[in-house]
Amino acid sequence: MKTRHTPAFAKASAGRQNLIAVALVGALAFTATIARAQDPLSSWNDGPAKQAIVEFVKATTTQGSPQFVPPEERIATFDQDGTLWVEHPMYSQVMYCLERVPALVKAKPELAKVAPFSTVLEVLHGDRAAMEKLTMDDLMKILAATLTGMSVDEFSAEVKKWLAEAKDPRWKKPYTELTYLPMQEVLKYLRANGYKTYIVTGGGQDFVRQYAEATYGIPPEQVVGSAGETKYGYDKDGKPFLTKEPKMLLNDNNAGKTEGIHMMIGRRPCAAFGNTSGDQQMLEYTKAGSGARLAMLVLHDDAKREYAYGPAQGLPDTKVGAFTQALYNEAKKDGWTVISMKDDWKKIFAFEE
Amino acid sequence: MKTRHTPAFAKASAGRQNLIAVALVGALAFTATIARAQDPLSSWNDGPAKQAIVEFVKATTTQGSPQFVPPEERIATFDQDGTLWVEHPMYSQVMYCLERVPALVKAKPELAKVAPFSTVLEVLHGDRAAMEKLTMDDLMKILAATLTGMSVDEFSAEVKKWLAEAKDPRWKKPYTELTYLPMQEVLKYLRANGYKTYIVTGGGQDFVRQYAEATYGIPPEQVVGSAGETKYGYDKDGKPFLTKEPKMLLNDNNAGKTEGIHMMIGRRPCAAFGNTSGDQQMLEYTKAGSGARLAMLVLHDDAKREYAYGPAQGLPDTKVGAFTQALYNEAKKDGWTVISMKDDWKKIFAFEE
Repeated sequence: MKTRHTPAFAKASAGRQNLIAVALVGALAFTATIARAQDPLSSWNDGPAKQAIVEFVKATTTQGSPQFVPPEERIATFDQDGTLWVEHPMYSQVMYCLERVPALVKAKPELAKVAPFSTVLEVLHGDRAAMEKLTMDDLMKILAATLTGMSVDEFSAEVKKWLAEAKDPRWKKPYTELTYLPMQEVLKYLRANGYKTYIVTGGGQDFVRQYAEATYGIPPEQVVGSAGETKYGYDKDGKPFLTKEPKMLLNDNNAGKTEGIHMMIGRRPCAAFGNTSGDQQMLEYTKAGSGARLAMLVLHDDAKREYAYGPAQGLPDTKVGAFTQALYNEAKKDGWTVISMKDDWKKIFAFEE
Repeated sequence: MKTRHTPAFAKASAGRQNLIAVALVGALAFTATIARAQDPLSSWNDGPAKQAIVEFVKATTTQGSPQFVPPEERIATFDQDGTLWVEHPMYSQVMYCLERVPALVKAKPELAKVAPFSTVLEVLHGDRAAMEKLTMDDLMKILAATLTGMSVDEFSAEVKKWLAEAKDPRWKKPYTELTYLPMQEVLKYLRANGYKTYIVTGGGQDFVRQYAEATYGIPPEQVVGSAGETKYGYDKDGKPFLTKEPKMLLNDNNAGKTEGIHMMIGRRPCAAFGNTSGDQQMLEYTKAGSGARLAMLVLHDDAKREYAYGPAQGLPDTKVGAFTQALYNEAKKDGWTVISMKDDWKKIFAFEE
């Protein structure tokens, strides 16, 4: 083995240079790690959507900014199905109602041969085509039979049990894992900046409350949804309880969302997020306030990683979650931001590789 | 002048003793000051009511206590009229409605000669006896005419203007100064221990929200009250707004209070405070939960410093705020605590000497 002579100072110098190089690389890597760790919206690609969120938060939370919003007025509202998690091919709450039918029939066997309950049994036994037979009126009957008539505590226990067992047919995962990581980041980012985050859903308030806290960090009192009346009564031991009644109190869709917001929050939101025409009035109402306002719509245009449906921008029309071209046009005209799932989201689900 | 000889050591010793004595007295005085400053319920006399509050907070907030309640579940609900502030001789909101009638008549002069509006004008012109003519049906007409038909923003502005000017006839002070200091202390004490404090009132939700934040530190989203529908629409510039409609959505009295709690909070309170039969179900519902529960009723038995009315315990019956003997008996039977304003409250108002 041949040895090479190197002057001592050169060796020392090379060592120093190596040390400096290592230190520099280390420092750069460290800085990059910090930068990544510090980006609260790291699942978002750089672009107008991410920029709109960051600029809104800066404008409304920087002391001395002309658009500064006092902490107590920082309210952000989020639609749930299709905005925070997957709504396709069917709302998870509708799946719950269908899958409750066997238990219902077990308790009342006479229902087994009565439509629409018999139809649901056919669907659950594998005849997916039978689903087509169900009308909106049938669906209302199924919802009333499975969402009302029990105490609020019984309902809560039933929903929690179902959520622990039910799985989405495509991803074979619990529904509560099908939340959009970029939106989870927005929720956390807004809360870290003093915003109170609310769900404002057309779905059942009592249903969404069963998982909103664990899934999104949103407590029951910050879930506004469609709600029915409850009736106060006493059990045989004189203990009071509330029964869910088949009478609608708040239909939290379309203009109902602004009513629900006024009723349950009593302040106009500074930011609102939706994905269908059912969110139109909530976004208009939010945007009509003074100062900086953020109105955003999630466009499902990623057929590969999630689904693509509209019918805005020529995407296929589906029965669930209609993002119409008219809504898209209003968004463009009134300065709302459309989020392209395909372009704006680096990663859609936390479980993605 | 005669001088006395004292050995140097004795002088020194006496000096030291004095110093120690001064230090001790100082320390004691300091400790007493601290103790006073640290008593969050200093307007309460020692007794079972104060003790019930302190023990409840200790049991539910001490880590390791068998009755420990996680912070997110710490909910306390307060009736407002007669529990947090004076409701006698008439609810302030009813005063607001009566005093809005002149503005209403100015806008619609034809009402000046139509009962019940003409009757209200007589009352406001000094004919207090005319008040007796008003039936409950009349009152409902006046409430509908003065609480609905305008945008929620207009209503908010009108109420705020009235609150800034109106004065209670006995104390000649704004209504918002007629809050009970001991109850303000309870609100702060509970919040300091992680409780979320809610108002749950039979009064109008939109009305109480105009002052609850400044008066009690309770934000609009923590005010549950009787609420009417709102209707979404657009002004001539296409700007959306909500109009208050004359249709009841939630009658937040009696069993309605538990419905309102379920709808707006979605959790059973750990503590509830009321003063009339309208609070009965809220207190029952609260008390029926597991673990430590606090249910309290304010008894107006101090004719000198405030008012005395019941008819519980033989106090005079009034049209406003009925604390019946049946409610008193239920309280005693079910372990609710009755607060005697006369015996339990050292001071009733902050403005008292």
